[in-house]
Amino acid sequence: MNEFELIERYFRRAPHNADVRIGIGDDGAVIAPAPGMEYVVTVDMLVEGRHFAAGADAERLGHKTLAVNLSDLAAMGALPRFALLAGALPAPDGAWIGAFMRGFDALAGQYDVELIGGDTTRGPRNLCVTAIGELPAGTALARAGANPGDTIYVSGALGDAALALAVTLLMVSASDAVLPALRRRLDAPEPRVALGVALRGIASSAIDLSDGLTGDLGHILAASRVGATLDLDAIPCRADLRAKLAGGERDLALACLLAGGDDYELAFTAPGAARAAIDKLAAPLGVALTRVGSIREGRPRLRVVDAQGRALDVATGFDHFA
Amino acid sequence: MNEFELIERYFRRAPHNADVRIGIGDDGAVIAPAPGMEYVVTVDMLVEGRHFAAGADAERLGHKTLAVNLSDLAAMGALPRFALLAGALPAPDGAWIGAFMRGFDALAGQYDVELIGGDTTRGPRNLCVTAIGELPAGTALARAGANPGDTIYVSGALGDAALALAVTLLMVSASDAVLPALRRRLDAPEPRVALGVALRGIASSAIDLSDGLTGDLGHILAASRVGATLDLDAIPCRADLRAKLAGGERDLALACLLAGGDDYELAFTAPGAARAAIDKLAAPLGVALTRVGSIREGRPRLRVVDAQGRALDVATGFDHFA
Repeated sequence: MNEFELIERYFRRAPHNADVRIGIGDDGAVIAPAPGMEYVVTVDMLVEGRHFAAGADAERLGHKTLAVNLSDLAAMGALPRFALLAGALPAPDGAWIGAFMRGFDALAGQYDVELIGGDTTRGPRNLCVTAIGELPAGTALARAGANPGDTIYVSGALGDAALALAVTLLMVSASDAVLPALRRRLDAPEPRVALGVALRGIASSAIDLSDGLTGDLGHILAASRVGATLDLDAIPCRADLRAKLAGGERDLALACLLAGGDDYELAFTAPGAARAAIDKLAAPLGVALTRVGSIREGRPRLRVVDAQGRALDVATGFDHFA
Repeated sequence: MNEFELIERYFRRAPHNADVRIGIGDDGAVIAPAPGMEYVVTVDMLVEGRHFAAGADAERLGHKTLAVNLSDLAAMGALPRFALLAGALPAPDGAWIGAFMRGFDALAGQYDVELIGGDTTRGPRNLCVTAIGELPAGTALARAGANPGDTIYVSGALGDAALALAVTLLMVSASDAVLPALRRRLDAPEPRVALGVALRGIASSAIDLSDGLTGDLGHILAASRVGATLDLDAIPCRADLRAKLAGGERDLALACLLAGGDDYELAFTAPGAARAAIDKLAAPLGVALTRVGSIREGRPRLRVVDAQGRALDVATGFDHFA
């Protein structure tokens, strides 16, 4: 199969949104937001051997490749609309591409994300998605909006993906009953799209947790020029991870909770007056929204304190060149 | 240097366009076109060992990585506005990144293209740019607009980049006087931005010549459901390539002219009535615009005829998986 047959077979599809004037298959796609709307654009590159193992399940990888981008859009409060997929592959392997696109398309279909462009070439496996979302002008959730006194929230539970990775790397064991759920968190994260959209006009800042809570929250602090205190015991996590925190595997548990990436939950800040509005979101969205700390004036430093009020040495987030 | 220090040092810059509501450094950039304008979005991935050699000059590569995307925007008639740069690098090599960004920034500055996002990771060297251009609603130059009777034009001269590659691969020799100019065509192509913009409302279809004239023109024929005849002797090229066409290196010269990629000239079609308007563009834009054939009714097949009216076996364009 040559490059153009691959494109025809796996990537070409009819445009189905009125705001796609020209879809996939030209030198560029032509799009325009509705009056009063703005676009949010983000890009993420996933590299074999770095973000996923050689031999990783292609369908889950197709899901994850799009999911990490939708998570960025969610952190901005944008509704996902379009994606462009560029990929280098070691060979034009139709079965692999078919499985990858099943995963990609299933998630894209869930949010009516239209594939409007791409590029295909031979090379070490590398997948690069550009995602475009839409939101009413001026409603984007930036990193720079946190204010002293704001409460810090996180969605869902943290540490699962890092724990799954630690199990894979044989650093720790997990029971057969737990492992599939952990692996799903690592391999097939669910972007918090509905939550991001719902937080418009409520949250003062937001970020998605791809590199770990302390590192990602650090970006909010730096952009907002504020400090923060995190309450370790308040950080939501599965019971067995909580148990490790109190036992002999405390260091690993701390690393999973505070510096573990790949959970793709949202961290966000909001003024105290927004508390009732936020509490009301959790049930209809089916996601826990937990207060884990607060923003304070001062240098962009993060204090993490335990139940006894003792400050911990905090690890930083994931650095791709570390 | 870690990932975030790299970003601060080489990639972060203050937004300087009013339509960039949030620039580089958040989970996504926020942009909106002016009323009545549309965006054109395109993505291209360049892989070491495939699109450029290991050890390629980083500054020229920075130029080319953006240039190939601006060329796609030019083929749509769009004015380039924004770019996102995702890159995998074997190491956080500040000197290499600095040189790459000098080439990238010099071209971006020429067209006031603002870098609004990106991603940096470790991996086999791979550079993926998403470029966003802008044009008045409904004026995009699509591949699907060619009509029977239209004239086919190409800009500039073809075959230089393929000839440079052939020299590099020792398939043919070139004099020292000629080589630097050839190599510049291959390594540092100039996207036909002003031409693309000028062709709005004049051309019926357009494409950029990245994979070779016959292959790329084939995309216009397929999209427009028309056939075409190309006049081999009319295709503009340097005199020494023309000489090879008549001599013992005819096959190589034909391959350079018809199937050689990487020239990043534009091919476009226009009705006969547009001839005077097109002729008037050449001088102010400083680029030759040459009539090389015509569109005809029928199946999307391309006939290439020589001065004696004999049809040639045409080679197809570059296929990244061939």
